[in-house]
Amino acid sequence: MTQTAEITATLGRYAGLIEQTIRAELATGLDPWMQGALSYHFGWVDDTFQPITNGNSGKKLRPVMALLAYQGALEILQPGAGENADLAPALPLAASLEMIHNYSLIHDDIEDDDRARHGRPTLWALWGKPKAINAGDCLDMLAYRALYRGQEKGLPAERVLELTRLITDTSVRLTLGQHADMSFEDNLEVTPEMYLKMISGKSAALISCSVKGGALVALDPAAPDNAARLEDFARFGEQIGLGFQIRDDILGIWGLTAKTGKPSGSDIRRRKKSLPVLYTLTNAAPALREKLLHLYRSNDPVTPEQEQFVMDALEETGAREFAQAQADRFKFAALEALTQAAGGEKALANNPPLRKLHELSTFLVERDY
Amino acid sequence: MTQTAEITATLGRYAGLIEQTIRAELATGLDPWMQGALSYHFGWVDDTFQPITNGNSGKKLRPVMALLAYQGALEILQPGAGENADLAPALPLAASLEMIHNYSLIHDDIEDDDRARHGRPTLWALWGKPKAINAGDCLDMLAYRALYRGQEKGLPAERVLELTRLITDTSVRLTLGQHADMSFEDNLEVTPEMYLKMISGKSAALISCSVKGGALVALDPAAPDNAARLEDFARFGEQIGLGFQIRDDILGIWGLTAKTGKPSGSDIRRRKKSLPVLYTLTNAAPALREKLLHLYRSNDPVTPEQEQFVMDALEETGAREFAQAQADRFKFAALEALTQAAGGEKALANNPPLRKLHELSTFLVERDY
Repeated sequence: MTQTAEITATLGRYAGLIEQTIRAELATGLDPWMQGALSYHFGWVDDTFQPITNGNSGKKLRPVMALLAYQGALEILQPGAGENADLAPALPLAASLEMIHNYSLIHDDIEDDDRARHGRPTLWALWGKPKAINAGDCLDMLAYRALYRGQEKGLPAERVLELTRLITDTSVRLTLGQHADMSFEDNLEVTPEMYLKMISGKSAALISCSVKGGALVALDPAAPDNAARLEDFARFGEQIGLGFQIRDDILGIWGLTAKTGKPSGSDIRRRKKSLPVLYTLTNAAPALREKLLHLYRSNDPVTPEQEQFVMDALEETGAREFAQAQADRFKFAALEALTQAAGGEKALANNPPLRKLHELSTFLVERDY
Repeated sequence: MTQTAEITATLGRYAGLIEQTIRAELATGLDPWMQGALSYHFGWVDDTFQPITNGNSGKKLRPVMALLAYQGALEILQPGAGENADLAPALPLAASLEMIHNYSLIHDDIEDDDRARHGRPTLWALWGKPKAINAGDCLDMLAYRALYRGQEKGLPAERVLELTRLITDTSVRLTLGQHADMSFEDNLEVTPEMYLKMISGKSAALISCSVKGGALVALDPAAPDNAARLEDFARFGEQIGLGFQIRDDILGIWGLTAKTGKPSGSDIRRRKKSLPVLYTLTNAAPALREKLLHLYRSNDPVTPEQEQFVMDALEETGAREFAQAQADRFKFAALEALTQAAGGEKALANNPPLRKLHELSTFLVERDY
C-alpha cells in the first residue's frame, strides 16, 4: 500500500500554512543566532543561516491531524461548516504542536547522542550541547507563545487556557516517557507492557493532544455532549499513536530497503529494544533467551550472522505477528473511537475532514515506509 | 550591613508555604525517580531519596518578592487588606516562579559543566546529563501546571492566562540571556552595555516577572490605572534585579571571606568576566589591556601573582567604584519605581508589605554576603 494522492494533497495544503505560522513566531523578538539555529533545525536554512529552497522540513503530521480534527469538529456542530472553514483559530495550536514536537527532538538528539537527523547534522553536532539545550528550551517557550495567539484569533481566554493546560499535561507525559525510554537502555527485563506504557508517553501522548486539541478549538467543553466527544477524540489519538509507533518498530526491522528489496534489519543492528525484540526476549525458551541477552548486552558491532540469528529468533517466536496484531488492535480501537467522536458511521461518512483523518490514520498504521 | 531580623522573619514565614506548594506539585503524577531527583535538587532528600531534615533549600527570593508584591497591591486597592491577606491565590504563581528558577539552574549546571551547587553534587553529576536535561524539562512543565492552579484558587481564566503569558515571555528572555552569557565566554570584546543587556535577560527578567506577577494576581489589568501600576512594579523588579546581580559581581571579587577577612577574589580565579572586569578591559590603557587579555585568554590556573595583578588593575581603573555606582543607580531607579507603584512616598510608608519589599530590595543591593 502506498500513500494515497489525497493524503499527500492534504498534508501539502496544510503544511505551508503551518510553516508560515512557525516562521512568524521565530521572527519575533529573538537574536539572530537563536532564530537562525532554530530555522536550521526546521530545515529552512543551512548552517550559515542562508535559505534552503528545497529543504525537507518534515511532514507535520501532528498539526495536520489537529487541523483535520478542528474542521471535523466544526462539521459535527454544523454540517457543511467544517470542510472549508477558516483555519486561523486553529493555526496557533497547530504551530505550537509542531514546535513542541521539534523541541523534544532537539533535546532527544542531545540525550541520545545522535549526530544526524534526516541526513543533516543535528543542532548540537554543529553548535555544541550547551547552546543546543538552551535553544530547545527557547523553542519550547516559543511554542507556548504561539499558542496564546489563539486569543488574537478570537478564542476566549478559557479555551486558550484549556489548550495550554492540555499542552502542559502532555509535555509532562513526554518527559516521563523519555525518562522511561532512557532507563530501558540498561534494563533487559523490560516487558511489552512496560514498553507500551513508555511509548504511550513518548509518542502517543502528543498525537492524542493534537487531535483532542484541534477538536477543543471548535468545541466548547462546557456545552452538553462535548466533554464526552473530546474524550473520544483523545482516545482516538492515543490509540492511533500507539499503532503508529508499533508500525514504526515493525518497519525498523522488516521494512524493505529501496536498494535491495530485502528487510532492512536496521533496528537489529542498532540493538533497539523495540516491541518485537522485547516480545521475543520475554517469550523465548531459556537457552535462546540467554543467547539473545548475551548479544543485546554486548557493545560490539552486530555481525551479519548475529543479525540473521536475531531475525530467525523473532520469526520463530512469532514476534512480527504479535507486533502486527498489536498495531491492528490499536488501529481498530482508534477508528472505533473516531467513529464515536463523529457521531456514528453515517455521520463519519458525511464528515469530509474526519474521513480524511480516518484515511490518514489507517495509512499511519498500514504504511510500508 | 547585615540582614535585618525583619527580612529574615519575612523570608522564613513565606518559605514554608512555598515549599509545601511545590512539594504537592511534585507528588502529583510523576514516577518515583522523577519525583525523587527533583526533590533532591530542591534539597529535600538525599541521593537515595531519603528525607533530609536540615537541608538548605534556598532563600526563595523570587516567590517571596511575588507574595509581598501581591499583598502590597491588595493594600493599594484597600488599605488594611494586604498585610494579613490570604496568600492562597498567589501561591500557585509563587511556587511556579521558584520552579522556573530551579529548572533554569538544572539546565545551567549542565550547560556550564558545574558539578556542584551549594556544596552538593548537581543533578547531572549524579544521574548523567541526558536524564538531567529531561528532568529539567519536566520541572519547567510542572511550573506551568502549578501556575494553572490559580484558577482553582478563584482567579479568573483571563488572569491566569495573563500570568502564563508573563512567565512564557520571561522564559524566552531567560534563554536569550543564557545564550548571550555562553557566547561571551569566547568573546573578549564584550562591553559593559552588552553585559547589562545579558544580565537583564538572565537575572533581572525573572525578578521583574516575580513582582509584576504578584501584583497582577491582585490587580485587574483592565481596571483604570492598573496597567500603569503594573508597569511600575515590572520596572521596579527589573532595576532591582540588575542592581542585585551587579552587587553579586562586586562580592565575587571584593566580598570578604569569613576565614581571612580579606577580599575573596574568587571570580578572578574563575576568570569570570563580570561587570568590573569588563569595565577594566574596556577602559584600561592599551598596554595594560593587552596584558589582561593575555591572562583572560589563557586556560592555566590563575597564580596568586596574577590574581593580585588583576585586583590592582581593577583598582587603578576604578572598576569597583564604577560597578557600585551602577548598582546604586539601579537601586535608586528601582526604589523610585516602587514608590510610584505604591502611589507616592506617603502611600508607601502606609503600605506594610511594600515597605518590606523596599527593605528587602535595599538589602539585596547593599548586602555584604
